[in-house]
Amino acid sequence: MKLNNNYRDLKESYLFTDIGRRVAAFQEEHKDVKIIRMGIGDVTLPICRSAVEAMKKASAEMGEAEHFRGYGPEQGYPFLKEKIRDYYAERGVKLKENEIFISDGAKSDLGNILDLFSEDNVVAVPDPVYPVYVDTNIMAGRKIEYLDATAKNGFLPAPDKTIGADLIYICSPNNPTGAAYTREQLAAWVEYALVHDAVILFDAAYEAFVSEDHVARSIYEIEGARECAIEFCSFSKTAGFTGVRCGYTIVPEELEEGGLSLNKMWLRRQTTKFNGVSYIVQRGAEAVFSESGRKEILDNINYYRKNAEVISSTLKDLNIYHTGGKNSPYIWMQCPNGMDSWDFFDRLLKIAGVVGTPGLGFGKNGEGFFRLTAFNTHENTAEAMERLKKLIG
Amino acid sequence: MKLNNNYRDLKESYLFTDIGRRVAAFQEEHKDVKIIRMGIGDVTLPICRSAVEAMKKASAEMGEAEHFRGYGPEQGYPFLKEKIRDYYAERGVKLKENEIFISDGAKSDLGNILDLFSEDNVVAVPDPVYPVYVDTNIMAGRKIEYLDATAKNGFLPAPDKTIGADLIYICSPNNPTGAAYTREQLAAWVEYALVHDAVILFDAAYEAFVSEDHVARSIYEIEGARECAIEFCSFSKTAGFTGVRCGYTIVPEELEEGGLSLNKMWLRRQTTKFNGVSYIVQRGAEAVFSESGRKEILDNINYYRKNAEVISSTLKDLNIYHTGGKNSPYIWMQCPNGMDSWDFFDRLLKIAGVVGTPGLGFGKNGEGFFRLTAFNTHENTAEAMERLKKLIG
Repeated sequence: MKLNNNYRDLKESYLFTDIGRRVAAFQEEHKDVKIIRMGIGDVTLPICRSAVEAMKKASAEMGEAEHFRGYGPEQGYPFLKEKIRDYYAERGVKLKENEIFISDGAKSDLGNILDLFSEDNVVAVPDPVYPVYVDTNIMAGRKIEYLDATAKNGFLPAPDKTIGADLIYICSPNNPTGAAYTREQLAAWVEYALVHDAVILFDAAYEAFVSEDHVARSIYEIEGARECAIEFCSFSKTAGFTGVRCGYTIVPEELEEGGLSLNKMWLRRQTTKFNGVSYIVQRGAEAVFSESGRKEILDNINYYRKNAEVISSTLKDLNIYHTGGKNSPYIWMQCPNGMDSWDFFDRLLKIAGVVGTPGLGFGKNGEGFFRLTAFNTHENTAEAMERLKKLIG
Repeated sequence: MKLNNNYRDLKESYLFTDIGRRVAAFQEEHKDVKIIRMGIGDVTLPICRSAVEAMKKASAEMGEAEHFRGYGPEQGYPFLKEKIRDYYAERGVKLKENEIFISDGAKSDLGNILDLFSEDNVVAVPDPVYPVYVDTNIMAGRKIEYLDATAKNGFLPAPDKTIGADLIYICSPNNPTGAAYTREQLAAWVEYALVHDAVILFDAAYEAFVSEDHVARSIYEIEGARECAIEFCSFSKTAGFTGVRCGYTIVPEELEEGGLSLNKMWLRRQTTKFNGVSYIVQRGAEAVFSESGRKEILDNINYYRKNAEVISSTLKDLNIYHTGGKNSPYIWMQCPNGMDSWDFFDRLLKIAGVVGTPGLGFGKNGEGFFRLTAFNTHENTAEAMERLKKLIG
């Protein structure tokens, strides 16, 4: 038996282990300090009432002979796919139901979609980057090109002639930088992909945080994207489903190459290697689109948005360059006084008792930057900003 | 962009489409006939009370600030892994908690596990076979060898010198044949794998149906299996979770090759390409192991077992060779009077109004055989057997 030797090329990531270790050591020595965690990328507010009630009802149904459901369609139940189709239609994006595939989360499908592509493809990922894009491609032995995201381009790389990629990852609003492409900026990427026969893998996990009109929430708002883009989305950040697990992937019918339809390939992949998302979870996701559900999740998103605003306005007052916060729960700040990421991490922890994520953990261009998140309480966020002001101001 | 051209080698499977079409056409012409479906591979009894209550409780928890849970461990919550560990320990199989990975079902992991292996490996699958083993390997471009399962070996192929496989799929109790390996027979496969440096991918999805003492429920009941086998199991048939979605995969620490640990590779694969199973679903699965849960699922399994017995004893009375029924919800019968699979399908449908699955749909050795399942009501099963007797007797 021969193993997949590409796994030997994976680098161990100690980022969150390192952070945990440093925080634990500090707390051990300073038991009285109330540490505020602004590094978490996970939601903190409970699931909205409508979704909870729907999941309780669906659980009960599964125990009743007349309502029990066994295997469902691998690609998801029509009752949920219709809601997603209508959600996109509100923004003028027309999708067919068979182009929508319900998943157990964007992370799974962002990895699994690679099954459809040859290992010979060159992959472009931004730097800094959500590590999953990199590791899934190292596992398959693909060549990776990095697109520099820096303060110079507002952490939003644009296509240029030096790129030779077949698959291009775009995450907007971005994790970790919070930067979000405008429709015009995305159109340049779509044009590039169409000219160069590339496929854009568009991670829209944070779309619900978009608040500005000129920022795209779906790549399909851009003309031509149906011929060159696959979109991944999730209820994780939209409705707090990080522990409930539901997302969706859109593969337009127009995507094809040499007579193979990517939509049909993905359907085949999913029917062969997946058995669909729990009926109970799909009923919960459906309820997110009800009138009450939409109001409830918007309340939660607005709660986090308020935190993002507080962080962003504090940084503005301190004259610190940052991206995100406006269309994203992430704020990507320059470390003050030219400090490097880990120096600032240590200083912020030890002097202010605040934990964030060193930008270097997301790639070399993250050096000198730092990620804060809006997933905390209003009280803790305000307190953390007071401490930051005292530290820097 | 280049696609994965292996997808061109996949054959479309029209088996269940064909069956559906023929059944619909017959019903259209004979509206008065009550058709009994004995072809379904899906459970029909509702989820047990303990699991339903646990999922309702977990859904409610997710809506409460003090109990809400976001991202869980990708490899599953300890509360569930401990229960599985204890369940194996009852049979004398010692597992470490880190060797157990909670999945959304055996089908997903049976496909995904292939990520760990080189494409150069040769794969052995039985014929007849659960099509997923074949298709997932065609997608990766691996060479497939077929192990003949026939009446001569009781549909339980044994290792021999002609096999040159690196990865060996064993499903016991088997889908579609219902045949189940004894411990002694499995020991021969473990010995073969150890000598030939092969890995056994052991599909134990139907283990809960084992009723005979000499039949293995886990490959780890065999000495040496920890060095050469990965086991896949599921709550689908054990607890009717086909629509709830939960399973588990066991990757022992001893499995390694050239310094790479398969357990660590799988952990890396899962943390990179998966985000864990819904907390709600995991609480449901945990409840299956409670005292009340175990009693309730055993009642359901015994209900199906009773059907299997009725089918098996009818076939015995009719002097028809068959496998399964004893340790399995599947009964694999020889078509009477030398009929081929589809001829018998048509005859059974048109004269008896009973639907089963033609064996040919599972591989060439399935020709002349037919699969019946125990997943129907007692009443329908008894009625179907009366009709069969009238047809053949």
